[in-house]
Amino acid sequence: MVRIAVLGCGRIGAMHAANIAAHPRATLAAVHDINTDVAKVVSAAIGAPIMATAGEVFAASSVDAVLIATATDTHADLLEQAVAAGKPVLCEKPIDLSLARVNACAEAIRGTSLPIQIGFVRRFDPGHKAVHDAVRAGEIGELHQVVVTSRDPGLAPEAYLQVSGGILRDMTIHDFDMARYILGEEPETVFATGARLVAPKLMERLGDHDTITVVMQTASGRQAILLNSREATYGYDQRVEAFGSKGMVISDNRRAHHMVRAGKGFTDHAAPLLHFFIERYREAFDAEIGAFVEAVETGSPAIVGFEDGRRALVLADAAIRSIAEGRTVKVSEVL
Amino acid sequence: MVRIAVLGCGRIGAMHAANIAAHPRATLAAVHDINTDVAKVVSAAIGAPIMATAGEVFAASSVDAVLIATATDTHADLLEQAVAAGKPVLCEKPIDLSLARVNACAEAIRGTSLPIQIGFVRRFDPGHKAVHDAVRAGEIGELHQVVVTSRDPGLAPEAYLQVSGGILRDMTIHDFDMARYILGEEPETVFATGARLVAPKLMERLGDHDTITVVMQTASGRQAILLNSREATYGYDQRVEAFGSKGMVISDNRRAHHMVRAGKGFTDHAAPLLHFFIERYREAFDAEIGAFVEAVETGSPAIVGFEDGRRALVLADAAIRSIAEGRTVKVSEVL
Amino acid sequence: MVRIAVLGCGRIGAMHAANIAAHPRATLAAVHDINTDVAKVVSAAIGAPIMATAGEVFAASSVDAVLIATATDTHADLLEQAVAAGKPVLCEKPIDLSLARVNACAEAIRGTSLPIQIGFVRRFDPGHKAVHDAVRAGEIGELHQVVVTSRDPGLAPEAYLQVSGGILRDMTIHDFDMARYILGEEPETVFATGARLVAPKLMERLGDHDTITVVMQTASGRQAILLNSREATYGYDQRVEAFGSKGMVISDNRRAHHMVRAGKGFTDHAAPLLHFFIERYREAFDAEIGAFVEAVETGSPAIVGFEDGRRALVLADAAIRSIAEGRTVKVSEVL
Amino acid sequence: MVRIAVLGCGRIGAMHAANIAAHPRATLAAVHDINTDVAKVVSAAIGAPIMATAGEVFAASSVDAVLIATATDTHADLLEQAVAAGKPVLCEKPIDLSLARVNACAEAIRGTSLPIQIGFVRRFDPGHKAVHDAVRAGEIGELHQVVVTSRDPGLAPEAYLQVSGGILRDMTIHDFDMARYILGEEPETVFATGARLVAPKLMERLGDHDTITVVMQTASGRQAILLNSREATYGYDQRVEAFGSKGMVISDNRRAHHMVRAGKGFTDHAAPLLHFFIERYREAFDAEIGAFVEAVETGSPAIVGFEDGRRALVLADAAIRSIAEGRTVKVSEVL
Repeated sequence: MVRIAVLGCGRIGAMHAANIAAHPRATLAAVHDINTDVAKVVSAAIGAPIMATAGEVFAASSVDAVLIATATDTHADLLEQAVAAGKPVLCEKPIDLSLARVNACAEAIRGTSLPIQIGFVRRFDPGHKAVHDAVRAGEIGELHQVVVTSRDPGLAPEAYLQVSGGILRDMTIHDFDMARYILGEEPETVFATGARLVAPKLMERLGDHDTITVVMQTASGRQAILLNSREATYGYDQRVEAFGSKGMVISDNRRAHHMVRAGKGFTDHAAPLLHFFIERYREAFDAEIGAFVEAVETGSPAIVGFEDGRRALVLADAAIRSIAEGRTVKVSEVL
Repeated sequence: MVRIAVLGCGRIGAMHAANIAAHPRATLAAVHDINTDVAKVVSAAIGAPIMATAGEVFAASSVDAVLIATATDTHADLLEQAVAAGKPVLCEKPIDLSLARVNACAEAIRGTSLPIQIGFVRRFDPGHKAVHDAVRAGEIGELHQVVVTSRDPGLAPEAYLQVSGGILRDMTIHDFDMARYILGEEPETVFATGARLVAPKLMERLGDHDTITVVMQTASGRQAILLNSREATYGYDQRVEAFGSKGMVISDNRRAHHMVRAGKGFTDHAAPLLHFFIERYREAFDAEIGAFVEAVETGSPAIVGFEDGRRALVLADAAIRSIAEGRTVKVSEVL
Repeated sequence: MVRIAVLGCGRIGAMHAANIAAHPRATLAAVHDINTDVAKVVSAAIGAPIMATAGEVFAASSVDAVLIATATDTHADLLEQAVAAGKPVLCEKPIDLSLARVNACAEAIRGTSLPIQIGFVRRFDPGHKAVHDAVRAGEIGELHQVVVTSRDPGLAPEAYLQVSGGILRDMTIHDFDMARYILGEEPETVFATGARLVAPKLMERLGDHDTITVVMQTASGRQAILLNSREATYGYDQRVEAFGSKGMVISDNRRAHHMVRAGKGFTDHAAPLLHFFIERYREAFDAEIGAFVEAVETGSPAIVGFEDGRRALVLADAAIRSIAEGRTVKVSEVL
Repeated sequence: MVRIAVLGCGRIGAMHAANIAAHPRATLAAVHDINTDVAKVVSAAIGAPIMATAGEVFAASSVDAVLIATATDTHADLLEQAVAAGKPVLCEKPIDLSLARVNACAEAIRGTSLPIQIGFVRRFDPGHKAVHDAVRAGEIGELHQVVVTSRDPGLAPEAYLQVSGGILRDMTIHDFDMARYILGEEPETVFATGARLVAPKLMERLGDHDTITVVMQTASGRQAILLNSREATYGYDQRVEAFGSKGMVISDNRRAHHMVRAGKGFTDHAAPLLHFFIERYREAFDAEIGAFVEAVETGSPAIVGFEDGRRALVLADAAIRSIAEGRTVKVSEVL
């Protein structure tokens, strides 16, 4: 059994803790949160010991690996400490909002052979993964265009948005990773445009956008288009389309069930999309833990590694510069 | 050019007249209706001469073939006269409401080599035909079950229902033919049950039903299930499913376009089904005329022949007896 | 916490044991199987004590309620013993293959106020339940037709089929219950027809069928049509359609994900249906345990009770007689 | 009856001629082509007189209106001559490949009250129009993003591509118009990127691209994304998605019929998309003629007017500059 400790017991940390406990080859070794009351809730519900400090976790011989789900600005520090302590890490995205900090972190852990996995959970979604696998298997021939539609079911609270690092580093970052995952080739140029349509005043106050389109192109000409909105009234809109020389694959949305209704003047009326990301990506979160457990067991590199986390941030930074300067930005400018 | 005269200029005769006129290898040779005013409307719109009597049509050397779309109780007489006059016939279904009369008609035209086509238009629907073709091509292996869902968009007027011969001979008759078309084997037994749910009082007055389920089985055990209703508020519900040892094919419904809508609390909301049978089966009506033109040109037997018309009526009669007697009826009892 | 013991640790018992252990308000109190090795596997995996006999389970004060997942021919005995011991019961379907035995069991437990739930898990499927709820809420007006398509992904082993009681009591029994669930009214007549198409020789040897169509009608004329096959190559085909005066609702099939593929000559190519019933009805199995836990906690009657189990068997018996005698059978004949 | 003459009897002119002849309130007054043999084919098939020169057509009192379907480089000249002759015009797109020529043409016809309609036929597609109407009716609230996917079923012949004016003026021009139609607001900025993936060598030789992504933004922040490819193996991929504050509408693709197939390992396998634009947009071509007939009858401005034709070309020119200069281009730079 792989004994995993969870650092950070907020919404996503608590979910990970439960998933670890439910995994047949993993146990929840410990939980930690700077707010002890929060840690207590998870501890009581799932039954793992509380550790008072992160240092205690890293020092514990009862802990084989750690999952970092703390506040974003602590990720890099904790990740470095974990590696220093010889613990494999599953770290929530983003590694840090600052590319400089991420680069420094990369330097600090250079040469480690410990599995380090970044929490780009969508790679583990059965539908999105099926798109990836079909593309890699050549089922659509040469890949030409990737279209990622990614719209949140509703605006996050202002307090969250203030520390989120902006939509590109917070939300689009998942889509940058998805694009890289499907493309199988690094984007060379990034164009982005942002608008304030969902909550114009709030976005102006935050200096942020709520509606984003990004277009990236690789050296060979493959195009990736990312479509974001902070609010889709019909649910959490998550689609991936890959188009190529021999065909197309689409990972379509998910609903809670497949009941459709017809009546006077309409047909096919279906339920809204699954709203909550934990519900929408439930199988993916399970599979993410499973992949981490396997990486720890075998000592093999994680499927989504540190460099994947760094690259997604590079693309976000390029997109931010593209919006600011109204031009296509070469990735090499920010790398 | 095949010169076709249309007998009967009601709704369906007028449509056929227009389709004949639009066919590249056919012309509308003449129109006739016992109500001359009705014939005039079609004549004026499309531009064909009016003939005062059916006899005139049958005698005319300017007429290569005839399409019979008159009142049902005149079909058999006109069909016999047409054959006697050496004119190929496309006759609207049913041949007659009385099986005895149909059998007599069969006797009267025995031995003719003229193409005689019965108006089971649904065989020409691209989707239903694709089901048929897939089954015949072995794409679903051995056929096990055929499910025909056939619900009208709304109750016909009482005046029509009174002379319709009842739902089984009027509406289900299409589905009996569809079942035979897909099955590729004659049903051996027929079970039917009827209910009065759409318009209970009217149905009781007419001694008719508005909701029907029929189950037929062939000697080899293949099953065909027919589901009818006189009123589907969401449109004209026309589906055919064939299930077999290697898979399943389904011909699904049609809408006017494929716009779907999502909003607060719903997704995939689509337009109602096409309501009107002429609109729903537009391609089929065109293809039906095309098949008739080709049969006349080549002198080959029609795709849907007289015996098909007779067999469908046999099954309707067996179903009527099944409802009356509350038991499975062998087709051989009514054949 | 409701402490539930599981009797019978085969495939389905083991699954229930895991679901009980995962339920936030339930614990797995004990497991029992006449084959101790089988019980040990579940005990080791989930961590509950083994009890050597059913009697020990019923006597244990550490057990609040029992789940019966033993061989069918022990269900009624164990159910009676559980009730005698004052333990609420969740009993897998069918209660027994013999209606006489079920009636005797009903007599034996008459007057108990203990929650007794029968394992018709499909009532808890989110899609099927949404159909039920829409019908009850009047969303389709007056109900006219219910169509239940229920095809297994593959033939069960001969050893299983030999003791299954035949397709109608083993497989269609779920659909009889589904029909009653949606109809909201008892069927008055039953017609059934069976064929041997999937495995003709085996079925002849067993005196059983592998392809079934059942038509039932209620006093008010509502029709329910059940379509069964023992083998659908494309997966576990589970659909429920309810048609009424104001519209239609359909609970459609489920796939593992929603990736579709288009290529030269095709579009929309999707994954097969979920094959395995435990996977297909995963949410339903969870919800079934949840409903039982709630019934035990509150002492309220189960959502699917003993009489539901008995009624489904009554309909199966009527269908068996219908096939044997080639006629419509009144439910009152077998009740 | 509106008497319409067709100038240019190539593939699309011949189709328009037939549609005019089939329209209940229009007749084909004459046909003209610089290649008389081509004109003869249409004349023979449909039955209209041939006129030897365009001048003859414009002078004919038997001609109420003209449809221009000649080579692109003659459009503007013929349009000016038609207006000078007082004939309403339906002119195929594009008006000209040169914006300067289009602007000169606009100057030449300034002040005319004759209906002048440009052949952006997709506005008349029932599904795309339903998206437009839903957006205008406020069904999705404030519009945020429009996504137009437009992929041809196969590469046009090199001879055609050489004179096409490039993918942006030839193919994307339809999508520029569609974006404007749905947006209801002029784009302010244009970003475009092109790739050579379908036929790299040919495209290099032509100085053209075969894969295009365009992103436009309006002053209020609405975004339009256009996705093009010269070759989709699965058919003619034509989708329009509009996303807004209250929901989303999508006009999805069309197939010849709705038969789907399931078998070992797959479900929902459907026919390819309709390949041929005349087939795909059949209803739209009919409706386009209908709208023109009505404009001529009533003397009212055409639904898609000269300025619409000019604006689409402006956007194409901006996109061409964007690709050339690797930056976002303001529409005002090229207007």
